[in-house]
Formats: sequence, C-alpha cells, structure tokens
Amino acid sequence: MNKYAVYHLPDVPYAYPKDDHTLTVRLRAARGDLKKCVIRYKDRYDWTSSFYIKEMKLKESTGLFAFFEANVQLERNRYRYYFELTDQEGNLLFYDERGFRTHDLEKNEMTAFQYAYIAEADVYEQPEWHGKSVVYQIFPDRFHNGDPSINPPGTQAWGSEITAASKFGGDLQGIMDKLDYLEDLGVTVVYMTPVFPSSSNHKYNTADYFSIDPQFGSLETAKELIRKCHEKGMKVIFDAVFNHTGSDFFAFKDLLENQENSRYKDWYFADSYPVSEEKINYYTFAVGIPEMPKLNTSNPEVRDYLLNVAEFWIKDAGIDGWRLDVSDEVDHEFWRAFRKRVKAANPEAVIIGEIMHESSAFLKGDQMDSIMNYPFKGAMADFFGTRTILAEEFDDILTYNRTIYMDSVTRQMWNLVGSHDTKRFMTECGEREASMRLAAAFQFAYIGVPYIYYGDELGLSGGEEPQSRNCMIWDEKERNGDLLEFFKKLIHIRKSSKALTSGTYRTLYAKENLFMMMREHEEETILAIFNNRETPAEVTSPASGTDVLDGAEITEGNVLKMDPLSFKWIRC
Amino acid sequence: MNKYAVYHLPDVPYAYPKDDHTLTVRLRAARGDLKKCVIRYKDRYDWTSSFYIKEMKLKESTGLFAFFEANVQLERNRYRYYFELTDQEGNLLFYDERGFRTHDLEKNEMTAFQYAYIAEADVYEQPEWHGKSVVYQIFPDRFHNGDPSINPPGTQAWGSEITAASKFGGDLQGIMDKLDYLEDLGVTVVYMTPVFPSSSNHKYNTADYFSIDPQFGSLETAKELIRKCHEKGMKVIFDAVFNHTGSDFFAFKDLLENQENSRYKDWYFADSYPVSEEKINYYTFAVGIPEMPKLNTSNPEVRDYLLNVAEFWIKDAGIDGWRLDVSDEVDHEFWRAFRKRVKAANPEAVIIGEIMHESSAFLKGDQMDSIMNYPFKGAMADFFGTRTILAEEFDDILTYNRTIYMDSVTRQMWNLVGSHDTKRFMTECGEREASMRLAAAFQFAYIGVPYIYYGDELGLSGGEEPQSRNCMIWDEKERNGDLLEFFKKLIHIRKSSKALTSGTYRTLYAKENLFMMMREHEEETILAIFNNRETPAEVTSPASGTDVLDGAEITEGNVLKMDPLSFKWIRC
Repeated sequence: MNKYAVYHLPDVPYAYPKDDHTLTVRLRAARGDLKKCVIRYKDRYDWTSSFYIKEMKLKESTGLFAFFEANVQLERNRYRYYFELTDQEGNLLFYDERGFRTHDLEKNEMTAFQYAYIAEADVYEQPEWHGKSVVYQIFPDRFHNGDPSINPPGTQAWGSEITAASKFGGDLQGIMDKLDYLEDLGVTVVYMTPVFPSSSNHKYNTADYFSIDPQFGSLETAKELIRKCHEKGMKVIFDAVFNHTGSDFFAFKDLLENQENSRYKDWYFADSYPVSEEKINYYTFAVGIPEMPKLNTSNPEVRDYLLNVAEFWIKDAGIDGWRLDVSDEVDHEFWRAFRKRVKAANPEAVIIGEIMHESSAFLKGDQMDSIMNYPFKGAMADFFGTRTILAEEFDDILTYNRTIYMDSVTRQMWNLVGSHDTKRFMTECGEREASMRLAAAFQFAYIGVPYIYYGDELGLSGGEEPQSRNCMIWDEKERNGDLLEFFKKLIHIRKSSKALTSGTYRTLYAKENLFMMMREHEEETILAIFNNRETPAEVTSPASGTDVLDGAEITEGNVLKMDPLSFKWIRC
Repeated sequence: MNKYAVYHLPDVPYAYPKDDHTLTVRLRAARGDLKKCVIRYKDRYDWTSSFYIKEMKLKESTGLFAFFEANVQLERNRYRYYFELTDQEGNLLFYDERGFRTHDLEKNEMTAFQYAYIAEADVYEQPEWHGKSVVYQIFPDRFHNGDPSINPPGTQAWGSEITAASKFGGDLQGIMDKLDYLEDLGVTVVYMTPVFPSSSNHKYNTADYFSIDPQFGSLETAKELIRKCHEKGMKVIFDAVFNHTGSDFFAFKDLLENQENSRYKDWYFADSYPVSEEKINYYTFAVGIPEMPKLNTSNPEVRDYLLNVAEFWIKDAGIDGWRLDVSDEVDHEFWRAFRKRVKAANPEAVIIGEIMHESSAFLKGDQMDSIMNYPFKGAMADFFGTRTILAEEFDDILTYNRTIYMDSVTRQMWNLVGSHDTKRFMTECGEREASMRLAAAFQFAYIGVPYIYYGDELGLSGGEEPQSRNCMIWDEKERNGDLLEFFKKLIHIRKSSKALTSGTYRTLYAKENLFMMMREHEEETILAIFNNRETPAEVTSPASGTDVLDGAEITEGNVLKMDPLSFKWIRC
C-alpha cells in the first residue's frame, strides 16, 4: 500500500457535518491502490459494542490520488472512527490517529479519530436556491443606457472605442429596460459590479456605501429594479468593496484633512504623515492606486460600519446577497461577523467571495458560501480556450478544486469563463465559436453555478481590461443570434434537469482531448461528452439514452461520431 | 520524487501568520526524498520583479515524512509563492496550486499559492507567560483539608479507602495552607478541577456557576486563594464545565418542573416529554448519566449565560484562564465567542481545552490556546510506562502531534502523563520509580508545558478512577522525598533554562529504546538523552557540554555510559 498517499484529518473537508445528523468522512489514497476502503465507527462513549462497518465509495480521482467518501449517522452525533484499507493484493492495514497498523487493537477506541459532536451552530447550511441558479454578470456602465438624462459628463457614443476612463452611460434604468431580455435568456441571478457612488467607471473606489451613483440612478431606481427582478423570479447580487474605499470616502477625506488628528486615522494604514495622494504613503489596493486606500477591517469601528452597510442593502433594498471584492485580503474575523449579520438579515442571502486562488480557509462554512471559481476559469481557458493543456491535467485541476471543499460549497461555486477582470472567452479561444459553445456546454453540465459575463451569450469579444468591458450589443443585426439561441437552450435544459442542477458529479473519462462526465440524480442521469479535438472523434457510448439536444436515440456501445470541437448531452 | 508525499495548503498549519509581519510556510515531503526545498515568494501584486528565493529548513521528520519550514516577510504582507523541490538525484520539480511541473513558467504568478493578506485580527497571539509555565493539577477534595468546619456529611478519614462517592474534605483553605509547598516545588500554575457547587466529589455536575461549593469554601476564600497565588507568582486556572450542567442547575430544575412549558426547554435536548431522570430521556454527558444533562450551546441564551460566567471569574475573581471540560462536544461558534469575551476581559488569560484526540479544528488560533495533550500522554504511557512501543513509534506520535498545530500552540500544550481521568503514571509504569523519573525528565525537556498531577511528584500510585483521585500525602515519612527533590530539581532547571522554556525542538535520534532531543535557543542549547532500556546503554555524545544534573564535562564523541532507565541533560 502506498502509505504516503493516505490522508485524513477530522476537519473540513475530510470530516464535516453534512447536516445536523450526518457526518461526511473522506479519505485520500493513491489512485488505484485500494481494493476496498472501509470506515468503522461508533458512538465515542460506547465502550462495549462493536464498531459499525461501512464501505466508503470512490468519489473522485486525480492522476495521483483517489478520494473515498461515506456519510455516517449516529443517534447522539458523537463519532469515533478509523479506517480499514485493503490494497489490490489483499493486504489489510488499519489507519487511525496514530497512523497505520497491521492488526486490529483490542482497545481500538483509544487511538481512533474523533468527530466529537455535530453541534447545530457548526452545521453549514447552503441556501438551497443558490446551487440551482444561472448567474449573469452586468457591468452597469456598459449594459444599457436607459436614462440619458443622468449621463455622466463626457459620455461616449455606445460602442465607441474604450479607454480606461470611458463612460458610456449604462444605468439601472437600462438594466430594468432589459429584464425581458434576461428573462427570455433564462438567467436567474443578476450580479452587478458596484453601483455605489464612485468617480470611476468600474466604481470599485467607493465614495459612499449607502446610496446609488447618480450616473446609475437613485436608491428608488435600485429598489424598483430589485423588485422587478424578484417579480420575474430573478435574484439580485450587489458587489461589496470592503477591502478599500475610494479616496473620496468621508473617512479618508477626513484623514487627508486632519492627518494624525483625524478621528479616522485607524481606519487606514498610513506609512507616514502627512498622508498624501501624490506620495501614496499609505496602504492601497494593489500597488500605487491612490484612489483605493486599504481599510483596516480589523478595527472594530470599521467592521461595524461595513456590517451596517451589508445589512442595509439586504434589509432595506432587498438584495439577495453580496459578491465580495478582494475578499481574501480582508480578515477571517470580519467575514465571520459578516456572515452572522447577513444571515440574520436574510437566512437565504448568499455570500460570494472574489478569491482567485485556493480558498479553503474561507470556505469552511463559517464565512462565505462560495467564491468566483477562478481556478475553474483558468482550467477552462487552458483546455477549451488556448488548448494548451490536455484532458488529464484539466480534470486534475477541477478534481483538486472539488476535493478541497465541502460538497455543498462545490455546488455553489460561481463557475465563470470570463469576467470584467479577464479577457472575454471568445477572445481567449481565438474567436472559434465552436470552442465558445463547447466551454458553455461544459459550464452548464458541470457541478456548480454557471456564470455568464454579459454579452458572452451573443458573441462579444474583448481582450484584457478595459477591452473586455465593452458595450453590450442590442442591435439584433450585429449580434450572434445563433449563439444566443444556443445559450437559451443550454440554460433551459440546465434549469429543467435535476441531474444537472442537483445531481452528483463524476468524471468518466479524461484523456488527451476527450472528456466525459456523468451527473446523477435519483430521477435522472445525464452523460456529457466533450470532443475538444480539432478533428472528428469516434466515441463508444458508455450508456444508452437520448441526445438531449437533437433527440437521437443512443444505445450503449454505439460508436458516436463527434464533430470537431463538439459535445453531446445524453439523458440516460 | 515521491509526489504522493508532497503536501501543502495555504491554511493553518501549512501557512499561517507567525506574527503580523511574518508568514510561516510548511511543506511536507517523503522522508529523505528531498535534497533541497526552496520557497519562491513575492508580493501578489508584483508582476515585474523576480520571486525572492529562500531555502526551507528541515524541521520535523516522521518515519514516512519530512516537514520543511520557512518564515518569510514582505512589506505589504500579501504573499504569492510556490516551491522548488530537488530530490536526491538532482531532479527538480516546481510545485504550486496546480501541482507539479518540470519547468518554471513564464507567468509563474498565475498558479502560485497565495496567502493573500495577514490581517491583524487573524494573527494568533500566544500569552507569552503560558509556554514557560509548569502546571500543577489539584483535585480539591483530595489535596488538603484546611477547614474541617465545612466538611461535607460523611467525610472520610484522610487516606482511607476510596469509592466513587467518597468525600475527604479537601478545600480551598487547604490549598491556601499548602501554597508554600507549591512554591517550594516550583510550579507556576495551579489548575483546580471544578470548585463550583455540585453534589458530587468531582464537581463536574455544576449546580451554580457563580459561587463556590460550600464544602470547598466561599467566594471570598477563592478570591483570597487567587490573590495569594498571584503574590507568589503563581497563576490560577479554573475548570469550566460548559458541555453540561448538573441536574440540580436552575434551568434543568425548571425543565423538570415545567416540562414542555419551561422557559429553559431549549437549553437542553429532550428526546420526549415528560423529561425524567429515571428514564434519562434527554441528552446527557457520555451515556446514562442523568445528573449531567447536555447543554445546547448553539442556543444564544445559553451561550450568553455561559459567557457571563467566563467573564465573571476572570474579571471579578481574577483567575488567569479556563480549562474547558469536554470542550470538543461544544460548538466552534461557542468557543470563538468565548475567546473574544475572555481575551477582552484579560488578554493574558489562557484557554485550554480538554480534548483527548487530534484537535486541529479547535486550535487554529480563533478558539483555544492549547489543550490537555492526551496523545502525548498516550505515547508516554506506552513508551516509558508499559514499554509497549519503541522510540520510532513514540517519536512518530509526538512529531505528528507537533506538525498538525502552529508552533505557538505546540509551545502551550499541557503535556501530561496522568490526570484525574487516567491511572497515575507510577501505576502505569508498574511502580518502577526509574521510569517515573524518566517520564518526568522527558516532560520537562520536551516542548510545551510540563504538567504534574498532584502527588505524582512524591510517589503517589493509583489505578483507574476513582483510585487515581487519592488523597495527597502530607506526612513526610510516608512520601518519597527523593522523588520530590528530583522533581524540584527538574522544575528549577526547566524554569531557568531558555532552551527548555523557549527553544526550538528537534529529535536527534529515536531508535528502539534510545531517544535524543535537542532544544536550541540563541543563548543556550540543551541535549537530552533517554535510555529506556532495562539494561545499561553506551551512547556516543553528539555534542560537547556539561551534564546539567551532575556537572560532569562531556566531549563530543565520548561514549556515555547510561544506567538502565536513565537520562542525561547536557548543556552544550
């Protein structure tokens, strides 16, 4: 047995309460090494009975590792457990807190792992609606100009050349005007980048957290927009920039004015005094961005201020959750308090971090519900976009991503292929529409929340920022109507499929440029096959069923002829 | 390279802030596999400079694994990093979020690990005094009877036969009377099992959290005891039983009286109504203990009540911290709130969990400072006590224990060899005084807080509870004075040694029945050698120095003749 590969720790994600009466337990081993993986468990105060025995199922595999999982239940929710591992040659090892041993112990209680108690307060509860959503991201200045009377000075003509400073007059009324479009498209969550007053076009330098940028509308417009979205069954997510403020935020202005004597001195991080926007002698977002001074969220005053903001927009304006900008540079303590306040205001509200990397420290259930899944985006760009990695590596990246989180978090990941901070996918894939379709089909088949960056659905291209923040196309003659119809179809199938919204996920095959996944639900199973070759492929179908897109009947063992850069979804 | 063994995750204990400007990074690999382990790091917003390069030091080894560690610093505390691993054959692999690759990337920023920001609020701060302490545990009913006027009914003669129900009249005045003894012994922390009103002799079924059991004294006696301890430079730790109350606690009495209509219905877990102590149809501590109904600490009312208790004894009575009974069956949410309240009342107060198993979920810095180290106790019992494991396994258990926690937590572990819940070590080791001495010498040389169960220092024996809860011996003729002097000597040396109280720890040798460790501090190094054979041993000294106990000069390479079951501490 490969002992180096075996890993378990009685903590998230290797042991965690699935609900208040079920413990999910994972164990990692070397891929292909174990013939059988068994968990032996019982109440930690039961000194007389034998341990219960349950075989753990192979749930995930990477190139190196296999992940086994079981859900176990005990009346009093106090777990003592260890593992019985059998390798392919039939060798049996026991694995507990002290590591490996070849024989079972008389007192195997002593060194068993323990998950001492599932307490109600520690159970992570996912907002059920969220995992079934389809998210649509809007960059308000570039979506639609619904009220030219509030155009900012220097508003450019819609669709004209973009610079970092461009403003195009998109606004909340514009979004409201296009709700039928969004409803027709089928998306269920509208996520807007910041809408609070701010001097920039992206609004990530907040001047005031309690109102709407007058270039976008008013608090009343916002409330009306939220109300109308709700009427159409769409949820609304706002963008909270709590890592930093704008330099024109009242507290920073006070600091600039009163310097060391400012009452808000400890809201920021001054390197020296006098603080100056020219010298940038204070901590900013990123490097050398004077208009974004970093907030000291460890300061209780700052924390209270921002938590009031968080609560206000949920309670007063009715938003359904927050997307959190640069959230990994804000302290865990803050996010724990944030979660408490937000969930108290609305238990169904969701909390999505912007974290571009491995984020398990934020996703244990006490802070965020999920994040914008940039590791997914990176893998998608490399596999379907630039085609610089093969299916084996692609699958490894995604599998690793799933195994470092609880299943309930994986189900809520915002699986994007582009955003206002990246190239548009159409550009990423060299304008190959087939690749764009392939990527979308993968997004909509995969576990987690599919995420559309406005305009991607009708063929918008765009390089690195600011080019990817381009104007939405409303002229039907200028947009790719076929692609739009394709997106509508995917969204419709996704939403009406229990397998795709709620099923388990399994990679069936990942080699070179061929990838197969299975989504299984007790009422439905969907098999999805992706041919990422630029040449046709012949694939032996591993199951019988109906092609979801063209209705063809498929029999297990049939050779499916796949076009270059194409996919099939088969309902089995 | 053994890829299966390589492990890193940007979370405690593999990446954590050592302080507000230093990140500690660990990487695990197969033992002996790496010739060189390098971390490459830079500011996460630095897109132009090269990465800084730092070689990571081999810090720990188990039979299977090697653990490398480095402390890195960056001005803005935003870390992007990956690893460069070279195996013994000179093969180089890069390791980042996406796993292994054979070549460095042009854009190696993209898939590097990130520790996005060290926020002040997330930095775990250890109370500096605590790691330098020597803890002495007192079971008050059995330590000394200082005030016979408050003897409980049926008080037995001191030292007479113990039953589960015995009461011997030990009290707080008794402890006060013996403070000179404790001062002379040299201990610096007095930890008492519960002193609040309770019907039992162990007092783990609390009837009232705000007063002192009248059999032990009064609030005034307690305050005087605490004051006198402080005058002698000793800290006082009380025992908090927050997992359950006594059945005579007001809230449970109310539940029994008013049943489903009780205002305190949700403070407990009733299986059915009417709740009855005969049927025990409610959740209790362990199994079938009606006098210990489990508290619902997820209930905010319960939490607030208990947090007030926690604060009261620190603020009003002046205790220096809490030992937390059955703390792993209380929710993480509770302990996070507990930590905030306790540290606000006294930032120097310590919080010690009673958790008998792997406890990393509680020891990430947001809950407890450390725990009673029962895995250490188990290893000590098996190696020095029953001699059923060899040094290799012994070292593996201790090393695993160190590698799952932050260094600052390891330094605060209460390293016990016995308690009121176990056999006494003298009994565990078959009354071999040499083994008792060996174990004590190991405790006092090892990293963490040495812990003495009252009476162990003068030769008390005692089997499983209640026999281990026996009466302290005060008659000088009856106690083992030599052993007591030995303990005093160890304690004295420990306290005056920077290497032992604050130095780094390293296992130098662990084979069969021979064990060597090195404690290093910039001002002092101590080498400790343990011969756990029942026969003499000859050991080649790996360093020159002075035998701390007998003053002998030792030269590197000298063959040291070690008696059976003996040890040497050498100041190098």
